[in-house]
Amino acid sequence: MNNIFIIGVGLIGGSFALDIKALHPECKVFGIDTTEAHLEEALQLGVIDEKANFEDLNKAEIVIIAIPVDATLEVLPKVLDHISDDTIVFDAGSTKEDICDKVRNHPKRRNYLAVHPIAGTEHSGPKAAIHGLYKNKTNIICEVEETAFKLQEKALKLFSDLGMRIRYMNPKAHDKHIAYVSHLSHISAFMLGKTVIDKERNERDIFDMAGSGFASTVRLAKSSPAMWTPIFKQNKTNVIETLDEYIDNLKHFKQLMEDNDFEAVYNEMEKTNHIKDILNGIQ
Amino acid sequence: MNNIFIIGVGLIGGSFALDIKALHPECKVFGIDTTEAHLEEALQLGVIDEKANFEDLNKAEIVIIAIPVDATLEVLPKVLDHISDDTIVFDAGSTKEDICDKVRNHPKRRNYLAVHPIAGTEHSGPKAAIHGLYKNKTNIICEVEETAFKLQEKALKLFSDLGMRIRYMNPKAHDKHIAYVSHLSHISAFMLGKTVIDKERNERDIFDMAGSGFASTVRLAKSSPAMWTPIFKQNKTNVIETLDEYIDNLKHFKQLMEDNDFEAVYNEMEKTNHIKDILNGIQ
Repeated sequence: MNNIFIIGVGLIGGSFALDIKALHPECKVFGIDTTEAHLEEALQLGVIDEKANFEDLNKAEIVIIAIPVDATLEVLPKVLDHISDDTIVFDAGSTKEDICDKVRNHPKRRNYLAVHPIAGTEHSGPKAAIHGLYKNKTNIICEVEETAFKLQEKALKLFSDLGMRIRYMNPKAHDKHIAYVSHLSHISAFMLGKTVIDKERNERDIFDMAGSGFASTVRLAKSSPAMWTPIFKQNKTNVIETLDEYIDNLKHFKQLMEDNDFEAVYNEMEKTNHIKDILNGIQ
Repeated sequence: MNNIFIIGVGLIGGSFALDIKALHPECKVFGIDTTEAHLEEALQLGVIDEKANFEDLNKAEIVIIAIPVDATLEVLPKVLDHISDDTIVFDAGSTKEDICDKVRNHPKRRNYLAVHPIAGTEHSGPKAAIHGLYKNKTNIICEVEETAFKLQEKALKLFSDLGMRIRYMNPKAHDKHIAYVSHLSHISAFMLGKTVIDKERNERDIFDMAGSGFASTVRLAKSSPAMWTPIFKQNKTNVIETLDEYIDNLKHFKQLMEDNDFEAVYNEMEKTNHIKDILNGIQ
């Protein structure tokens, strides 16, 4: 491998860079970012080898776009305009329908692969980049048939070398399902954090009484609003649907408590305990 | 130390037993449990040294009650009836108001200390007992002034040897605050799990698309309904209050999305990011 371009040198892009450099010490990693301080930091941390800009993209073998999903809508067409016929470009965004629609008729559509690696942490920026982030993680690929065969192959080889499991979906199904298992979890955590913070004027009280259970449930409320706001905006319809169902379930649970129907409260929890089997597969 | 009695040889009681035996190899740990299979398992795992029953309690130096909070209401007065004047009894329940009320006028009230160690995992039973569960964890003590001074001292020495931080609260404040940082988190996780399970007929889809973020947010939905139902029942008023506020916050977030006010969506999250500082203190 030769020239890898990372657009957005944060947690996601930076972690790709680190693993690719480990696999292919001969390759050169170029970074593009709107935040100059991030580029400098990525250079110093050895996440990238060199700063670059869009005019350099014609020498890229692989371009990885790892920026907020609203910015990807603007940046991807520009990237496709600049690359050679043999370059494979993929993004890593948490929404896939809008981005696939955006480039549907771009002359270089065949150079793009729509990708969503289910990997990350609640941290962000170049410092958050870590080795092995993608190992044993699921990578969802949408509209694979729209990408040139040889370029699909190159990207799949890379994902396989990184230790990822591949799943193919259409963008609509992706956005609908991911709203449940990812987007809703984030809102649930953010609003839990808000509820507790609003209530407790004296933070020492929270700090002292909260245990590892609270920490786990609210962990995602540390996530970046700059990354998540555009995701909720792009996936608005699906996310609102999940929120309606979640709120209804919470109201129903509350109603059972108000009715003193604690047998039903027990059953609600007992039926959901089944989540154990699902989680065992994830962790 | 001599004879320690553990009533309820599960995660909480068993973990006390393991640590006390490590600290005081000379002491003998007796187990009482309504489930014979748990007692046998606890014996085989070395969590307890001997099975016992209520008639043996007169030789106890310390009695630890670690059973569901509804059962504690029945068991604690019986335990107090059986012990000697020098025995210290403490429970580990997640609600403190009802239990303190229950024994307020018991002739042996001075032998009881109302305790809530903020420690645990989502697992249960004797097998879930682990060494060091209580190290660096908070231990909330209620109505400390109602307990005989020498017996307070003995319990506090034990908690200190286990590495716990002590916080004193009144039972009313305890139940109100813990509803926010513990009880609400459990309902939020259970209902998140339910929402996703209900939606996804095909579990392979959840399994494949869910990442570590979902796993973290929903982890508490693995908890025991037998333990949690009585907690919600005893702390009904406070829990319903937290649920009302949580549901209102979720509805407000949804409304902002429906209004396309994504600047406000951003601000909601940004204000809550502040939870980082609180969590840094916990983990």
